[in-house]
Amino acid sequence: MAQEKEAIGAMEWKIKMAGGSSESLAPTRARGCPGIAWLALKGLVVGLVMKVWNFLKKAWDMGHNEPRKVIHCLKVGVALTVVSLFYAMRPLYKDVGGNAIWAVMTVVVVFENTVGATLSKSINRIFGTFLAGFLAIGIHCIADRFGKDIEHFITGFSVFLLASAATFSRFIPSVKARFDYGAMIFILTFSLISVSGYQVDQLFDLAKHRMSTIIIGTSLCIVITMIICPIWAGEELHMLITRNMETLANSLDGCVADYFNNSGGFAGDKESDNKLLGYKCVLGSKATEESMANFARWEPAHGRFNFLHPWKQYLKIGALMRDCAYCIEALNSCVNSENEVSELTKTHISNTAIKVSSDSSMVIKELARTMKTMKKSSAIDLLVGEMNNSVLELQEDLKSLPKLFINPQPLLQEPESPENNNKTKAEAAAVALMDIIPLGTLTSLLIEIVARIEGMVSAVQELAKLAEFKAVGDRKANQNQTTNKVIPDQSALQRV
Amino acid sequence: MAQEKEAIGAMEWKIKMAGGSSESLAPTRARGCPGIAWLALKGLVVGLVMKVWNFLKKAWDMGHNEPRKVIHCLKVGVALTVVSLFYAMRPLYKDVGGNAIWAVMTVVVVFENTVGATLSKSINRIFGTFLAGFLAIGIHCIADRFGKDIEHFITGFSVFLLASAATFSRFIPSVKARFDYGAMIFILTFSLISVSGYQVDQLFDLAKHRMSTIIIGTSLCIVITMIICPIWAGEELHMLITRNMETLANSLDGCVADYFNNSGGFAGDKESDNKLLGYKCVLGSKATEESMANFARWEPAHGRFNFLHPWKQYLKIGALMRDCAYCIEALNSCVNSENEVSELTKTHISNTAIKVSSDSSMVIKELARTMKTMKKSSAIDLLVGEMNNSVLELQEDLKSLPKLFINPQPLLQEPESPENNNKTKAEAAAVALMDIIPLGTLTSLLIEIVARIEGMVSAVQELAKLAEFKAVGDRKANQNQTTNKVIPDQSALQRV
Repeated sequence: MAQEKEAIGAMEWKIKMAGGSSESLAPTRARGCPGIAWLALKGLVVGLVMKVWNFLKKAWDMGHNEPRKVIHCLKVGVALTVVSLFYAMRPLYKDVGGNAIWAVMTVVVVFENTVGATLSKSINRIFGTFLAGFLAIGIHCIADRFGKDIEHFITGFSVFLLASAATFSRFIPSVKARFDYGAMIFILTFSLISVSGYQVDQLFDLAKHRMSTIIIGTSLCIVITMIICPIWAGEELHMLITRNMETLANSLDGCVADYFNNSGGFAGDKESDNKLLGYKCVLGSKATEESMANFARWEPAHGRFNFLHPWKQYLKIGALMRDCAYCIEALNSCVNSENEVSELTKTHISNTAIKVSSDSSMVIKELARTMKTMKKSSAIDLLVGEMNNSVLELQEDLKSLPKLFINPQPLLQEPESPENNNKTKAEAAAVALMDIIPLGTLTSLLIEIVARIEGMVSAVQELAKLAEFKAVGDRKANQNQTTNKVIPDQSALQRV
Repeated sequence: MAQEKEAIGAMEWKIKMAGGSSESLAPTRARGCPGIAWLALKGLVVGLVMKVWNFLKKAWDMGHNEPRKVIHCLKVGVALTVVSLFYAMRPLYKDVGGNAIWAVMTVVVVFENTVGATLSKSINRIFGTFLAGFLAIGIHCIADRFGKDIEHFITGFSVFLLASAATFSRFIPSVKARFDYGAMIFILTFSLISVSGYQVDQLFDLAKHRMSTIIIGTSLCIVITMIICPIWAGEELHMLITRNMETLANSLDGCVADYFNNSGGFAGDKESDNKLLGYKCVLGSKATEESMANFARWEPAHGRFNFLHPWKQYLKIGALMRDCAYCIEALNSCVNSENEVSELTKTHISNTAIKVSSDSSMVIKELARTMKTMKKSSAIDLLVGEMNNSVLELQEDLKSLPKLFINPQPLLQEPESPENNNKTKAEAAAVALMDIIPLGTLTSLLIEIVARIEGMVSAVQELAKLAEFKAVGDRKANQNQTTNKVIPDQSALQRV
């Protein structure tokens, strides 16, 4: 009892070290108040250092895992240093002197991670400034003819009107998606010129300088962003969709395999868990896809992508993938539910169910390959046909399940009287039904997933048409022609 | 044949009018080239006018439907006009004269739709400027002691280093969520001061002016945004979550009712379709919720919300609602699938299934009411209990389904020989099974939805605890106590 009390009284102060070990700060009672204060201070400092250390470690890990982010940071540093030094050595370039800040500001604000975003902001900045300057000078010219008071009234009213209108335009989705930044720059420039109170000839001078500095700034940004390790929004979008397809395929495959192999110790493995939950990446990537597609539209031809590459189609494919992921989510929860199914019934359909899921994931992987290589797939029709055949087989297997419960003697003892017979059979059927329902749900969801995958297939085929993907070599094309004959009518197969 | 040719040759030019009517521009062959050119020009102009008209009409509708957006635009206009006139009448306020642009720029950049966003940007701007100014002047003081060349080197190197580091910090999620704008302003201010090439005493002067103009600009924005029809991010988030709950409840209810009343002409009605697809709003509101929660953290106490209101808990509730919506999505597709179920089996479970869905949606609606009134619900335990009871009933009904097929004579004729008997029974069972599986899937999904709703219930109860929702009056509390006894053990009920 006394020992216990002592143990409670002697609380141990432990500090978690970076390596995972912990250092115990045993309180030595002899020290008294200053000792405790010292320990508390030490704990505080060590805690703070640890927090900073962890933050830096995380940042380091991020930089290590994604070196392109580090390169982007260095690019920003280079661009700013160049523009700063350019203006710091002013004597050489006196005419842009006073407006140097605009060049620096342009670089800071316009330089973005991807080429598309930088281009979009640059073009918005140039046109916003130009349009606002043009309008402001026009209004200034008119207002200049009246007295000071009326001039102030006209200035104030025009600022109010145009700022309100431009702000409103930023709420309109089509403007927001493309010209949000331009509208902001328009308001900024218009207000600045109105406030400046310069004479008209001074204004033309100012406008000339400001345009030149902005053009210098944006050109520098565009050149650096396109030449040093460029990150193209379009390529990123393309890779994101391709990667998500692979993730989705692995998720689907793993989910079904996990259910049927559950006893084999498959679950709990961290790597397979990651694979399983991969569909969550797909569910959460809508915003990224949309912004990437938005920026990609501004990009010139690069790599395998033309200027007017059908980026919108990528969004459609992404949406269809998410539809598919919703079903996998439901499937996953159905797999993880506590409903117990006897091994016998499970085994009866496990092979076909696993075949459906592996065939489906093969189709998705083939789509990913089509995207990756940007070549029309010769095997996709065959694979879709196989997938649909597997669905039919699965449905047949499911239909034959009741026989397991009603025919064989070893499973259910034959009762004596006909009345009893009927009653017991009904009970047996009820038990069987409860056993089969989780499998039925799994099957229904798998069929729904297959239907959605077919939607993905046609979206990718549409993309292949729009983006003019090349066909594969003749040999394979011929093979495709012969295999096409084997494929049964898909729409008839799709559902019973 | 000749008529056909003429019909092909005389292509009709139609222009769609605003009202939906179309005006045909019949080509009159007598007119010749100038006539055709005139018609083409007329078509072009009318088309352009129509496009602009449609755009304006859409904008008008938006403004009409969401007057708060219009008010925001007017607020921006007022703020900018005030600050512009303040500086246009410069003679009165000579000391901030040259830096007037900073005040204007601050208003343009900082003024956002919600109070939280404006506050977040204002505070970021002030601290970013302050920190960067402090550092830049410090480095400038040191560099000033060396020669011109070394000074340029130090300036360039420090700009490179700090700009890269600050850009990198913008990639770190925790920094990005709160201090993204501050990091940008830090880079901007630091580079500007480094470029300026001023003497140290000039710099102090500049810093003083710039800080004062920024403080004037941000104060103006904060005052206007908080006083004239304020839009609080926190309140918006609260209302969004509440509204989404109601949408979800209606969706769930409509989805199941639609399935069982399909023959009654329920489907196809536009309003009910909108209700059904309401869950899509929930699926797509993740980004909005996150940004609102981010801004809400900056807001002071307002209305019913304290300064440290647990906004993070709203994100948890939102995520759980999305989980629920995924299941409703699967349910909806299962409902819309072409699997035909006989009316007999449908009718057998329709009442209980509809009861489960209406009980579930009652629970969600009660949660929405709890959120709306910010008062602890006295009825929620009772409603959850009822929902679980309905699930049990549904499962019982499903279990009793096989009896429908095996017992009653009118449905399946009794065969003569025992062998035939067995065979036919197995076939009948197979048919019955195929009939039951869609209903089984529906049930499984409903059970999963119920489980997820229970997750929502505990998340809302957690919120009620964290945000100290008030309890309802004594009378109701007593009622709650008595009803609590009736509720069976929920965890046991949850699944079979």
